[in-house]
Amino acid sequence: MESITIFELGENESLRRATKHLKPGEYAVVGSGDDAAVISSNGDFVVTTDTMIENHDFKTQWSTGFDLGWKAAATNLADVAAMGAKPTALVVALVVSKQTKIYWLEDFARGLQSACDELAPGCGVVGGDLALGETITIAVTAHGQLEGRAPVLRSGAQNEDVVAIAGTLGRAAAGLAMLQNSDLGLKDVYPEITAVQLKPNPPIALGVLASLAGATSMLDVSDSLAKDCNRIAVASDVTISLRSNALLGYYAVLEQVAQSITARGANASEIDWVLFGGEDHALLATFPKDAKLPAGFKVIGEVTASGGARVFLDDAILEPKGWDSVSS
Amino acid sequence: MESITIFELGENESLRRATKHLKPGEYAVVGSGDDAAVISSNGDFVVTTDTMIENHDFKTQWSTGFDLGWKAAATNLADVAAMGAKPTALVVALVVSKQTKIYWLEDFARGLQSACDELAPGCGVVGGDLALGETITIAVTAHGQLEGRAPVLRSGAQNEDVVAIAGTLGRAAAGLAMLQNSDLGLKDVYPEITAVQLKPNPPIALGVLASLAGATSMLDVSDSLAKDCNRIAVASDVTISLRSNALLGYYAVLEQVAQSITARGANASEIDWVLFGGEDHALLATFPKDAKLPAGFKVIGEVTASGGARVFLDDAILEPKGWDSVSS
Repeated sequence: MESITIFELGENESLRRATKHLKPGEYAVVGSGDDAAVISSNGDFVVTTDTMIENHDFKTQWSTGFDLGWKAAATNLADVAAMGAKPTALVVALVVSKQTKIYWLEDFARGLQSACDELAPGCGVVGGDLALGETITIAVTAHGQLEGRAPVLRSGAQNEDVVAIAGTLGRAAAGLAMLQNSDLGLKDVYPEITAVQLKPNPPIALGVLASLAGATSMLDVSDSLAKDCNRIAVASDVTISLRSNALLGYYAVLEQVAQSITARGANASEIDWVLFGGEDHALLATFPKDAKLPAGFKVIGEVTASGGARVFLDDAILEPKGWDSVSS
Repeated sequence: MESITIFELGENESLRRATKHLKPGEYAVVGSGDDAAVISSNGDFVVTTDTMIENHDFKTQWSTGFDLGWKAAATNLADVAAMGAKPTALVVALVVSKQTKIYWLEDFARGLQSACDELAPGCGVVGGDLALGETITIAVTAHGQLEGRAPVLRSGAQNEDVVAIAGTLGRAAAGLAMLQNSDLGLKDVYPEITAVQLKPNPPIALGVLASLAGATSMLDVSDSLAKDCNRIAVASDVTISLRSNALLGYYAVLEQVAQSITARGANASEIDWVLFGGEDHALLATFPKDAKLPAGFKVIGEVTASGGARVFLDDAILEPKGWDSVSS
């Protein structure tokens, strides 16, 4: 494995090696290499940005460059999807350290491209910036096309809507708990759970389908089901009631992981992971009660009143606990 | 001055305080607060991203939060302008440290907004991300509308075109030299020079005017006149000849600063600053020889041959020396 650093190679040659793994995608009129990229657009577009920071959001001993490129793309694509938009283009601002190897950068670029190819075909990386700092910092900005549809906001939920989710819940938190456990082999016993933390698979294509099915509100569950469900309740000023019996399947998948961790003397609860764990990037949406939900969405509750701006789980208030990117 | 940190306040309250200084601008259909912003668009748009890192690109003892917000916006707006586009919207990914104060963040937001208001009226900050890391890192992504025009690339320069520049040259480098000088009072003797380093004023509106006047190629001079002029020569595969007598005015403005630094025992050369200094973000463009240049553009040379992919200053090759964001 080549051990030369990005710093030793310099900006031009490092960028040349990284960009050879990237395709600008179907929407790029002008790709990287000029002052700016040019994206074809036909009506309103959406834009979102999110940052991942070494030792805060990831550790290089847990995640490969490929994983991080994939995750940085996937999490931003989920925000585009959650507006009901089709992803078109990413730009990537990347800070590396003096020690970062060129093979890491190439691996990162391959991860970005693979996530685009598998989760949002046609979307590509159209530009970026490479700079030197103390720790690896990844800021991806993602764009999407609304194709003439209205954006699906957090504020549109209506009384009597159903509340539905597409994607996984709690797996990323369970994966993190295994990675953090002193028994380092644990993460390999449940690789499909650990993978959701390292290389999440949000249901990107379902964003457009949810919009077409009439979704009244939507977001991606990045901080926790409880916190993000409260965001819809507050933005829409409605009362949401989730049913715990609809969540049993999500708990069941993680029960054995929780028991394995508890047996090793640490605290773990599959219920806490499902309700209060972040980073699965499932799509949470509300639909009119007579809507035909796209395959992949599962009903987990209802909007039970206008006003209230709160969430119940069965008969108890579900507090908006979860991830805070500044204080966590 | 309030001494509470962003970390102590938490994400939601910190963002609330910062965003109250920001207006989303004329092009925002949906501003910050949802999974993504929605920007109105009417044909192709341009997008660019650039990063500024504490202790690599700036020092907080030199620059206020306001200066940094301004500079982060201005430098990205210059990239949009250099495509011949009208800036429409910014998104800002900001990493702060545990020590960063809330007043710094509010000051930063005011700087972003002021730069939009003064340099690109109608453009605004439509979204962003706030995260915690070791050092302050600012990644701005800027968007612009082409309004049906073709983008002005680096690759369109033609033989016999004139080469022209709008904005300052060498002042940012001279300002940096004064900030770095052990005589800390020096920077205050030439405040209008120091200000170009701390709070640059690229001629944003001239980007669209250059496009309308028929500019065949354009970029913003971020790394140095020599390096960026070579980028046009290489991308367009032409030979560019700059005339030193057209640069005398740029040298003259900085002569006294160079003498003041030399008198303090350090090396300084106004010619080096003008030719090899970065960060002024002037617009460098080529125009057909019979074009009517917009006011603000000054001719400094000509395209003297097809092919060659190199730059002369009078009779000597001008080497592409300047800033390298990874190795500098």
